[in-house]
Amino acid sequence: MNLLDGKLISSQIKEEIADAVSEMKKSGKKVPHLAAMIVGTEGASETYVAHKVKACGQVGFESTLVRMDAGVSEEALLAKIEEINNNDDIDGLIVQLPLPSHISEEKVVAAISYKKDVDGFHPINVGRLFIDQPCYVSATPNGIVELIKRYNIETSGKHCVVLGRSNIVGKPMALLMARKGYPGDATVTVCHSRTKDIKAVCRTADILIVAMGRSEFVTADMVKEGAVVIDVGITRVKSEKTKSGWKLLGDVKYDEVAPKCSYITPVPGGVGPMTIVSLLNNTLKAARKELYD
Amino acid sequence: MNLLDGKLISSQIKEEIADAVSEMKKSGKKVPHLAAMIVGTEGASETYVAHKVKACGQVGFESTLVRMDAGVSEEALLAKIEEINNNDDIDGLIVQLPLPSHISEEKVVAAISYKKDVDGFHPINVGRLFIDQPCYVSATPNGIVELIKRYNIETSGKHCVVLGRSNIVGKPMALLMARKGYPGDATVTVCHSRTKDIKAVCRTADILIVAMGRSEFVTADMVKEGAVVIDVGITRVKSEKTKSGWKLLGDVKYDEVAPKCSYITPVPGGVGPMTIVSLLNNTLKAARKELYD
Repeated sequence: MNLLDGKLISSQIKEEIADAVSEMKKSGKKVPHLAAMIVGTEGASETYVAHKVKACGQVGFESTLVRMDAGVSEEALLAKIEEINNNDDIDGLIVQLPLPSHISEEKVVAAISYKKDVDGFHPINVGRLFIDQPCYVSATPNGIVELIKRYNIETSGKHCVVLGRSNIVGKPMALLMARKGYPGDATVTVCHSRTKDIKAVCRTADILIVAMGRSEFVTADMVKEGAVVIDVGITRVKSEKTKSGWKLLGDVKYDEVAPKCSYITPVPGGVGPMTIVSLLNNTLKAARKELYD
Repeated sequence: MNLLDGKLISSQIKEEIADAVSEMKKSGKKVPHLAAMIVGTEGASETYVAHKVKACGQVGFESTLVRMDAGVSEEALLAKIEEINNNDDIDGLIVQLPLPSHISEEKVVAAISYKKDVDGFHPINVGRLFIDQPCYVSATPNGIVELIKRYNIETSGKHCVVLGRSNIVGKPMALLMARKGYPGDATVTVCHSRTKDIKAVCRTADILIVAMGRSEFVTADMVKEGAVVIDVGITRVKSEKTKSGWKLLGDVKYDEVAPKCSYITPVPGGVGPMTIVSLLNNTLKAARKELYD
C-alpha cells in the first residue's frame, strides 16, 4: 500500500510556485494577487479564508481580504465584485461560500469575471471544462488530478467509480476521468444515494473516488484488492483520544480499507492540502494570463 | 418489445407547439423567430438547415436563413452574429456547423448571445446544464429526455450505460441521466473507445444509450433482456434493396437486438425526429423568455 501524500505533494508544489513568483519578481513583473471576499463572520468560512490568505503569503503572492458585513445588500456586494473585476492589479477573485440567504449565490458567482474566477465556479469555466476547453478547474477536482499525475497512476481503460454527484466534486471528477488524455480515458461510473447495490459497483472499481460526505461509508468489503482509493470526505467528530477533543474522519474506513489498496489518500493530509495549492496554481495562471487575455 | 416512436412523438409535439403559436398570435404576441446561419454550400449542412427551416414553417414560426459565402472572414461572420444578437425580433440563432477551417467554431459559438443560443452550445448554457441551472439543452440529449418522459421510462436507480463521450451527446446524456429528478437519478457509466470489455459493461445496462458513430456496433449479446435501448447513431450505407440505393443504419443491430428490449428506438424514426422538435421547443422558450430576460 502506498500513500497518496497530499501534504508532501502540496508542499512541493508550493515550493514550485514560490520559485515561479521569485522569477516573476526578478524579471520585474508584479506578483500574483488574489482577492478573497468574506461576507459575515461565520466560523468555518473565517478559517477557510484565513488558510487561503496564509498560503498566498507562503508562496509570495499578494492577497487582499475583503470583508463585507453579513447584512450587506446583494447590490453592494455585486458592485464590489465589479470594482475588483475592473482592478487590473488583482488577478484572481474568490467569494467564500456559503453566503447569507438574502444574497443569490448564483448571481454572485456569475458576476465574478470568468477571467478572474480562480475557484472555477463561473458557468463559463464550468462549461469550458465540459467541452474540454482550457479553463479554471475548481480546487478539489484539480487537486485530485494533480495527485494522480504526480504519482503516475494509470487511468486509461481503468474503471473509475465516483461516489457523489455534487457540482464541485463528483460531476467534474467524472468528466475529468472520462475525457481524452491523461489523467483520463477511464470508463467512469457515477453513483449516488439512488444507486442500487452500491457495494457491488464499488467492488468493480480500479479507481474509487469518494465524495459522499458520509463518514467511513466505504468499508473493506466494498474495495477490490489493489484499487486506488481517493477520499474527498472530511467530517469532524468528537474524540476522547485527541488533545483537541475532535478528530477528522474521511468517507473511507481507512484502517480496514488501506491494506487492500495499491494507493490511498489519508484523511487528513490527502486531498485536503491539494485544494489550496490548486487555488494558488489557478491564481498563478491568472497572473500569467495563461488561459485568458 | 415496444417502439420509442420518435416520428410519432415528434409530430405530437409539433402540434403542441403549433397550438402554442396560435395562442400567441391570438393574444397579439409576435410569433417565435429562428435565424439559421449557413456558411458555404456544403451538401449535408444545406439539408440539415433546410429541415430546420421547414419545421419552423410547420409550427408557424418565422424563420430567417442567413447565407454567408464560404470565403467570409471570421470578423464579418462575428459582426453578423452581433447584429442578430441585437435584433429584438429574432428569438433564437443557430449557426450550422461545421464551419470552414479559417473560422474558429469556438469563437463563433461563444459570440452567439447565450440568451438566443437555442442549440445549447454556448459555454454558459453548457455550464448551467452542468450545475443544474435552467438552460438551453442541445437538441439530441433534449430529444432523448423527452422520449423517455413521454413513454414514462423509469430511470431512478437504473443502470444507464452511455456509449460515447462527445460534447453534444455522450457527456450531456450522462449528466442528464445522473442528475436529481426525473428523468435522472440513474447510476451512469460512460464508455468509449478506451473502455475494456465494453460488451460486459453493456450487458449490465438497464438503459443503453448508444452514440458511438459505428454502425451496428451493438449486437444482441451485448444487451440484457428487458433493457431500454436508445440509438443515436445514423450512418448512410449503400443498399441494393432500396429505391434510392442507400439505407440508414444505427449504432445498434436492430433486428437482433429489438426482440430482447422492453423499449427501443428505430433508425430512422427514433432519436432523429426528436432533435428538430427540441430546437423548436428551445426557440419557443426563447420567444417566451422562459429562461432568460
